Order: sequence, then structure tokens, then C-alpha cells
Amino acid sequence: MSTKLEQYRVRIRTELDRVVDFWLKYSHDTQYGGFFTCLGKEGKIYDELKYVWLQGRQVWMYCRLYRTMERFRKPEILEAAKSGGMFLQRFARVPSSSNPWKCAFCLTRDGKPVKVQRTIFSECFYIMAMDELSRVTEDKDMQAEAEQMMSQLIHWVRVDSSGLGRPQLPGDTPVNSMAVPMMLLCLVQQLTEERGQEVAEKYREVGDWCVKQILQHVQRGGTAILESVTTEGKELPGCQGRLQNPGHALEAGWFLFQYGGLHGDQALQQTAVDKFMEVPFLSGWDKEHGGLLYFLDVDGYCPTQLEWSMKLWWPHCEALIAYLMAYSQTKDSALLERFSAVYNYTFSNFSDPENGEWFGYLTQEGKVALDFKGGPFKGFFHVPRCLYMCEQILDRLLDEQI
Amino acid sequence: MSTKLEQYRVRIRTELDRVVDFWLKYSHDTQYGGFFTCLGKEGKIYDELKYVWLQGRQVWMYCRLYRTMERFRKPEILEAAKSGGMFLQRFARVPSSSNPWKCAFCLTRDGKPVKVQRTIFSECFYIMAMDELSRVTEDKDMQAEAEQMMSQLIHWVRVDSSGLGRPQLPGDTPVNSMAVPMMLLCLVQQLTEERGQEVAEKYREVGDWCVKQILQHVQRGGTAILESVTTEGKELPGCQGRLQNPGHALEAGWFLFQYGGLHGDQALQQTAVDKFMEVPFLSGWDKEHGGLLYFLDVDGYCPTQLEWSMKLWWPHCEALIAYLMAYSQTKDSALLERFSAVYNYTFSNFSDPENGEWFGYLTQEGKVALDFKGGPFKGFFHVPRCLYMCEQILDRLLDEQI
Repeated sequence: MSTKLEQYRVRIRTELDRVVDFWLKYSHDTQYGGFFTCLGKEGKIYDELKYVWLQGRQVWMYCRLYRTMERFRKPEILEAAKSGGMFLQRFARVPSSSNPWKCAFCLTRDGKPVKVQRTIFSECFYIMAMDELSRVTEDKDMQAEAEQMMSQLIHWVRVDSSGLGRPQLPGDTPVNSMAVPMMLLCLVQQLTEERGQEVAEKYREVGDWCVKQILQHVQRGGTAILESVTTEGKELPGCQGRLQNPGHALEAGWFLFQYGGLHGDQALQQTAVDKFMEVPFLSGWDKEHGGLLYFLDVDGYCPTQLEWSMKLWWPHCEALIAYLMAYSQTKDSALLERFSAVYNYTFSNFSDPENGEWFGYLTQEGKVALDFKGGPFKGFFHVPRCLYMCEQILDRLLDEQI
Repeated sequence: MSTKLEQYRVRIRTELDRVVDFWLKYSHDTQYGGFFTCLGKEGKIYDELKYVWLQGRQVWMYCRLYRTMERFRKPEILEAAKSGGMFLQRFARVPSSSNPWKCAFCLTRDGKPVKVQRTIFSECFYIMAMDELSRVTEDKDMQAEAEQMMSQLIHWVRVDSSGLGRPQLPGDTPVNSMAVPMMLLCLVQQLTEERGQEVAEKYREVGDWCVKQILQHVQRGGTAILESVTTEGKELPGCQGRLQNPGHALEAGWFLFQYGGLHGDQALQQTAVDKFMEVPFLSGWDKEHGGLLYFLDVDGYCPTQLEWSMKLWWPHCEALIAYLMAYSQTKDSALLERFSAVYNYTFSNFSDPENGEWFGYLTQEGKVALDFKGGPFKGFFHVPRCLYMCEQILDRLLDEQI
């Protein structure tokens, strides 16, 4: 067993080094600050737009690596993170917006807003970036800024969303979309981690609310995780109501498992494993070709998303974290088997032995469908987050066995 | 030669009958009016949302068939078109909008707005529906309504787009997106067809402007049609600037060819053939698997659209119309060869011999990737428009040969 775990650790550690090298080498904009994220298979920049989600995520990831892993505590990484943070502080918020906290989705290379989404996600990654950067730099103002934007986010989600700019339409009834409580829960964990009792208390109620909202997505007598439900936790009609996103469910799984661990909630951890890790595998794993399908309709209709049958990198990243995290605590060998299945598929199909980093998008049969390493939605985030978390978990597991 | 053309005509005629039967049988909402368009491979309704583009297109198509093809002059078709027209008149425009002409993108089954796009396309298909319906019913008020909405559209496109609700952002510089002049040109042809000199004069300047705007998309010394260019007709930077959509270029090709024919502009017709029919075939035809790719980057980078390598039904419909229309006038056998290549691929891959109608989305290799017959973007439009136009062209060609 420990031989196997050691093999995983070696590969994962090597892979993380290669991925970090790739982004250090190709993604930094030394002229305007921030990061290029549209990088071809060999690292060549094929578009200069700067997506705020990906700017925030890269700042967060650099800081997290710098802060928690000895070998990444390098000035080059810190400086890049600070440059990204400054770029975000200067340009992410839209000056012409009626709300001073609203962030753009996409900026030009020199920081001019191109597009604003009427959702909360740019702001979420802005908060993650600022909070994690403030931990490295010990900048209290920056930490305060992250918490202020979090207050605004909570207001948009729980009190009044009109500030996001979506028109209220009679046919557009409010929905509990899993992404929203997941992101808020992720932010609660980010903002409270090792910050002491007072901050933990401040966000405790929001955290518990997020958990309840996520649990509403367990449907069909516990046999399905549905991506969108009514605000009362009932099924929605039509395609929207029947949509499953196995990778997203798995990501929610480890968020819940972690939250349950922090708060001594074993029942929640059990639900995380049984419902958010096992159910999406049963529905989402492609028995013929291997890998996790991107979208599924719970009643077996064909999803309307053209990419439904593709294999995307990030659901596999989330699955690796989920199964290894749950295994490390429960020692249930079935979870390690799930990890192994996903690991084998992932490392043989997504990782690029030639140029480093991972491909993001495969056909159902496993052929590379889009060969770039970074794009509008793929940056320095899911792959390194997965590798760094798995490496840390494996370190602990192997330490225990000595 | 005429044997081959006769074979095409027989197959196309049979196919059109089957397609019309499919939608007559499965798509009518007799309770609320309008049409269901989310229809599974056997015609089963899998979602009840009503997309305004597709409602308008189906009304237009029913009326066009009723008006121009003897065998479709049936009360059932007329009644369905009227029901769709009434549904649109009652529900398409968004009551809460600041502009009385702004239409929703998507409605609930009973007509409540779900989503509004900040573009002009719902309104375009509303105009097409109303104008064509007014020709069948001889309803002058309806014709006037179509023209009034057209005035509003022209204002949005050429004078001031702020009424569409898009925030003006410093990084979001105005773009000449091919869809816009194409749709306007299509509407000009719709509104002026056989309406006499006065209406033709009214729209002549707009029509000519559309042609100029479309011709700006011929780039790289005539070797590429680019989907988006600057308002001065220059290349845009990045992915957006390099994007090619061969099906769209081919559709523009027959719009231009038709317009050139109507106005005796042979040079325009030649450009339509050389640039908008031949260039997209050379760049977009998949030499390995056959069929037209959906998106391409002119510099050979991988497009960021996940579906770039899929084969969609509608580009093939547009290609069939373009090549047959150009062949019927020029008698250039190279154009008939292009038609044959597309015809062979299309009828062997998209048409469903078992349940009727066509699949819409194939993998690059030609496997059915999404098996429904109708969805949020596939309704009763591209397939029947292609078949009815090709049948009419073949009728004329075969008549000539007697």
C-alpha cells in the first residue's frame, strides 16, 4: 500500500513542479502586471485578454504555494503574486458601475474592462486573491478589503441581488444554483482559516447556511445531485432541473467533507462521501471510455450543452482531491480505488509529457480536442490546487505509516 | 446530369415532407399557442421553454411553405402559423423593458419572459415572422408592425445601441460582427420582396450598407472571411479577430449572391462565389472526416470554443443553398461538385432515417453527439429552409432542361 502511495506522491510532486514552471515561464506580464492565461500547448500567448477569475485564482495559488510549501517560498513567486494583486486592485472593479464592488469578468491587457457578468464569481476570486495575499504580506488593509467585499457578496446572495444588474423577469424565478453556496462556503473557509475565534464566529452562520443550501441539491431520494433546485430545495422543471454536473458535485463533496472535519460534524462528512462523492461517480463515470462526463440529464435525455460528453480536466482534479481527502481520514479502501481509477485516467490522458501542464478538453473517447494549456476558463488553478492538496495529503498519510 | 439533379430533387422533396410532418406532429402547443422546440430524437418534448428566435422562425417557415409551395397550402399549417404569430404578439416583447420593442430571448410555456439578450436577434426573427405572416393573411397592420420594429432595429444598429442595455465599457470597443449586417440584409430582402418600388426604395440604402459591412469581413488579401472586424473593416486583435465560421460565411454568400441578382450586380455575385463560397470551403472542409468544421482560427491556433471541431447541421444547410443557387445561375460544374460533396456528407450523417428530421450535432468523426431533433438553437428553420429552397432551385433547373 505505502509503495503505491509513495508512487503517487512522486508523480504528483514532479507534476506540480512542472506545472508551476510552465506558468512562471510563460504567463507573467512584466509590462502591465497580472497574467496572460491564453497559452498554447507550448506556452505561446495566443490572446492577451485578462480574465478576472483567472487573475484572482493565480494570485491565490501562488500565495498558497508560497505560504504552505517550503520549496515554493521563492521571491519570484511572491513578486508575481503581488503584481497580480496590484493589477486586480487597480483594474478589476468597474469604475462606471453603479456599485463600487462590482468587478469585470474580462479586461484588456492594460486593464480596461471588456465584459461584466451579472453574477458574483469575479468578486469571489478577487476575495480569494486578496485574503491569501494578505496572509503572505501581513497586510491588514487588504484583509479588511476582502472582508468588505465578502459582506457585499453576502448581501447580493442573501438579501438583494438587484445590484448585480440582472433585470427581474416574471418567468425567471429565483434558483438555488449549486455554484453560489459552494463558492460562498469556499470563501468562508478561506477567510476564517487560522484567523482565530472572532472571525470564525463572524462567518459561522453563513457557513452553515451554505451547507444547507448545498444539501438541498441531494434529490431523488439521495440518488442524484442536481445542479439547480428551487430556493425551497425542490426539483425545477425541464432541462435546467434535470442537469447533473458530476465534477461540480465532487468539488462540493470535498468542500463539505472539509467543513465537517473542521466543525466535528461526522454526519456531514458521511453525507459528503455517500452523496457527493459516490453518487456522481456512479452517474458520471464513463464505463466505456473512462473519465468523468461533463454534464448528464438525470432522466437520461441528452443534455443541450454541446460539450456534455467531453472530458474536462477540472472535474478530474476535484475527484482526485475528494477521494484522497476522504480516504486519508476514513481509510476506506473503496475510496482509494476511486482515486486510483481517476488518477490513472487523468495522468494518462490530460498530462502533456512533451511540453508540460495539462490539456483541458478531451473528446469522449479521450482524444485532445482543444490543445491549449490555458484559455478563458483554464488558468493556474485547478491543476496546481489538486496537485498541492494531494501532495500534502499523501505526505501526511505516508508520515503516519512510518 | 439531369438524372443526378432529378435524384437530388426526389430525395430533397421526400426529406422536406418528412421534416414538415415531424414538426406538425410534435411541436404544436395547442393549449398556450406557439411551439415546443425541445424535441427528442423521436419527437418527445423534453423541455417546455419557448425560445423567441425559434418561435419566429417557425412562423416564418410555415408561412413561406404555405405561400410558395402548393402541397403545403393546408389549413393546418396556416392555423399553426397564426397561433405562433399570436403567441409572439402577446408575449415576445418584455413589458418591463424600458423600450417597447425589446423582445425576450426565452419565455415560459405560458409566455412569461425568462431571459432577455442584449442583442437584436429575437427582434429580427419577430420581424421575419410578422412580415411573412402578413403576406399570407394580408394583414396590413401586421406588415406595418414589422416595418416599425425594423426602424427600431436600424436605429439600434446604426445610430445608438444603448437601448439594448449593454453597458458601455472602455475595453469593449465597437465591432462589426458579421451576424448583424447579415440579419439586417436578410430582413431587407424579406420586407421588400414583391412589395413594389416604394418599399424597395425605402430600404435600398440600408441594404447597400449591409453589403458593404459584410464585405469588410473579407480579409488577408481575400484569403479569409473573418467573423468579427473593426468598424473600419480592419482585423481585431486576439482570438476574436482570428475567428472564422465557415457556415456563417457560406450563408452570407448566398445572401450576397441573391442581393446581387436582384440588383443586377454581377461583380457582387462573383465576390459572393469566390470569397464567401470557395474560401470557407477551402478552410472549413474537414479533409479527413468530411463535413464543415464549426470554428477555425485563421492562424491555425486552436479556437477556444469547445465545439469548434464538431459538425453542426446548419452550416451544411447553408452550404447546400449557396452552392446550388450559385450553380443554377452560373452553371459552373465546380459549384455542383461542392454541392455534391456537402449533399453526400449531409444526407448520410445528419438525416435520421428511423424517426425523421435531422440530428444537429455530430462529433468531428461524424458520430451523433447530441441526439435531439430540436433544442434551444435548433428549431423548424435551417433544415426546411434549405430543403424548400433547394427543391425550388432544382425545379427551375430541371424545367430549363426539358
